[in-house]
Amino acid sequence: MNEFELIAAINRYTSHLPDNGFEGIGDDCAVLPLGDEALVFTTDALSEGVHFLTATTSAIDLGHKALAVNLSDVAAMGVRPVAVLLTLSLPREVEEHWVLDFMVGFAELAQHYGVALIGGDTTRSEGGIQISVTAIGRGPLRHIKRRSAAQVGDIILVSDRLGGSAAGLRQLWEGKVQSPEIEQHRRPMPEVEVGAWLGAREEVHAMMDLSDGLKSDLRHILNASQVGAEVQVNNIPRAANTTLGDCWCGGEDYKLLLTADPRQAGILCEEFEAQFGRNLAVIGHITEQGLRWFDHHQEVSCDYEGFSHF
Amino acid sequence: MNEFELIAAINRYTSHLPDNGFEGIGDDCAVLPLGDEALVFTTDALSEGVHFLTATTSAIDLGHKALAVNLSDVAAMGVRPVAVLLTLSLPREVEEHWVLDFMVGFAELAQHYGVALIGGDTTRSEGGIQISVTAIGRGPLRHIKRRSAAQVGDIILVSDRLGGSAAGLRQLWEGKVQSPEIEQHRRPMPEVEVGAWLGAREEVHAMMDLSDGLKSDLRHILNASQVGAEVQVNNIPRAANTTLGDCWCGGEDYKLLLTADPRQAGILCEEFEAQFGRNLAVIGHITEQGLRWFDHHQEVSCDYEGFSHF
Repeated sequence: MNEFELIAAINRYTSHLPDNGFEGIGDDCAVLPLGDEALVFTTDALSEGVHFLTATTSAIDLGHKALAVNLSDVAAMGVRPVAVLLTLSLPREVEEHWVLDFMVGFAELAQHYGVALIGGDTTRSEGGIQISVTAIGRGPLRHIKRRSAAQVGDIILVSDRLGGSAAGLRQLWEGKVQSPEIEQHRRPMPEVEVGAWLGAREEVHAMMDLSDGLKSDLRHILNASQVGAEVQVNNIPRAANTTLGDCWCGGEDYKLLLTADPRQAGILCEEFEAQFGRNLAVIGHITEQGLRWFDHHQEVSCDYEGFSHF
Repeated sequence: MNEFELIAAINRYTSHLPDNGFEGIGDDCAVLPLGDEALVFTTDALSEGVHFLTATTSAIDLGHKALAVNLSDVAAMGVRPVAVLLTLSLPREVEEHWVLDFMVGFAELAQHYGVALIGGDTTRSEGGIQISVTAIGRGPLRHIKRRSAAQVGDIILVSDRLGGSAAGLRQLWEGKVQSPEIEQHRRPMPEVEVGAWLGAREEVHAMMDLSDGLKSDLRHILNASQVGAEVQVNNIPRAANTTLGDCWCGGEDYKLLLTADPRQAGILCEEFEAQFGRNLAVIGHITEQGLRWFDHHQEVSCDYEGFSHF
């Protein structure tokens, strides 16, 4: 039973439940509209031996990352994260300094984005370390961006240069211990400010965060919106020291992928650059159906299909 | 580092974070007031080998229990649970039927109380099975009951007979396989209707759910309210086939413990009985300070201090 089969089984057994006003299952977050406002909710877990090894990931980096991946999901909805709940399941042999370092990494990032820690649970684990974070975001309802909102003719954009995390991971494998790419892999910065800014832009239609890699993640928008896409891989903005594969297929960049009204492309990109000092890059456009990749106008294929955890 | 030291460490590193309008850290749930309404949030994890063994707990019971303990925390706040997020970390060797059975137990209870499943995460675990649930409740802000609201002179009440779960666990140890107490231990029913009903009663002051045992849990209300208590253990309503120890110190009953204005005691208990067909039992009263236990007017002590997971 792989991850997708498991999710399908969960859906089968719970599809008859009421929604109680919550929307957006299949998006990065569930959405609860409350008048003109909305709250959004997401949860992500990290499991020792699967998502990290204590031998290669420091506790402080892990505390940062456990929070970052959840804040990224909230940012992808177009609103700001306001609070999190943290569950730690720890083996008896975990040392106190590990826990304290974890909390330093977690709290520094929470402080950076002004996020409250409102609850959690701590238990012993007979297996490895297990971390589960639930994040809550809040903002105007009309700012909420859904994966299903892409329209034929939309341009496709990414909020920053890609591939840095994959390049950092490869450098770690090669024995390197420090570089900007390794730093990005270890402590990804979620697009909190960028997500809230893009949320306020009406010309932005669909949005999600890039966690599994562009090639894999784009399909989620296409499936949810029932559209296709053509992407110019030579237009993917590449971080330093990356291969095309890093940028196209590499995971854990936590940048934003979005579609927008092509008539507003100029002003959107211009004002983004004025606000954030970097490019919002157009990499393709939404079509009726199918997903085609082009490299300098020549169609290309890529075998790598992103990754699943099971 | 035990559970309480760990929580103290977490608090130390996160106490400087903003609250963003969330309240009630230290209660069963965090509270977000939204005008006249409130949302409440809680999370609880279950860890294989610590909270359950797959050899002795069926998947269907575990699915029920993982949800029940979270719904109980919401009920304890005086409002109804409306939605949950579920995270499952599963070893590769977990069989498909285990997962499906787990979902049956989970979904049946969610259906029973009309709770939505709005998200979650599924990952592989290199250790045992890890389950983490976040529950969201919603109701009128004035219904919210806090542990800190007990007043000197309040009566102390429990919402049902206690000790059933502890008795069931003892029977399992003795080799019994089926009994009403074992059923209660395996599939505790959270006080969802009772909690919402008591939430609407102004004369109810402090409330919490009984998860670790009366003796241990009552201290949380006393500490939060900075008051004391005198309890008549002979007045604790006892489930069938229980010892006094089961009722006094046994955990996992998931009944509600509350304090109320003594002038309204008669009408509160009368209307509760009319509504639910069972007694709301007065077991003691709130004093200025200290915690004293009496058995037929003779002071008694109990060495058992509840349990901590580390």
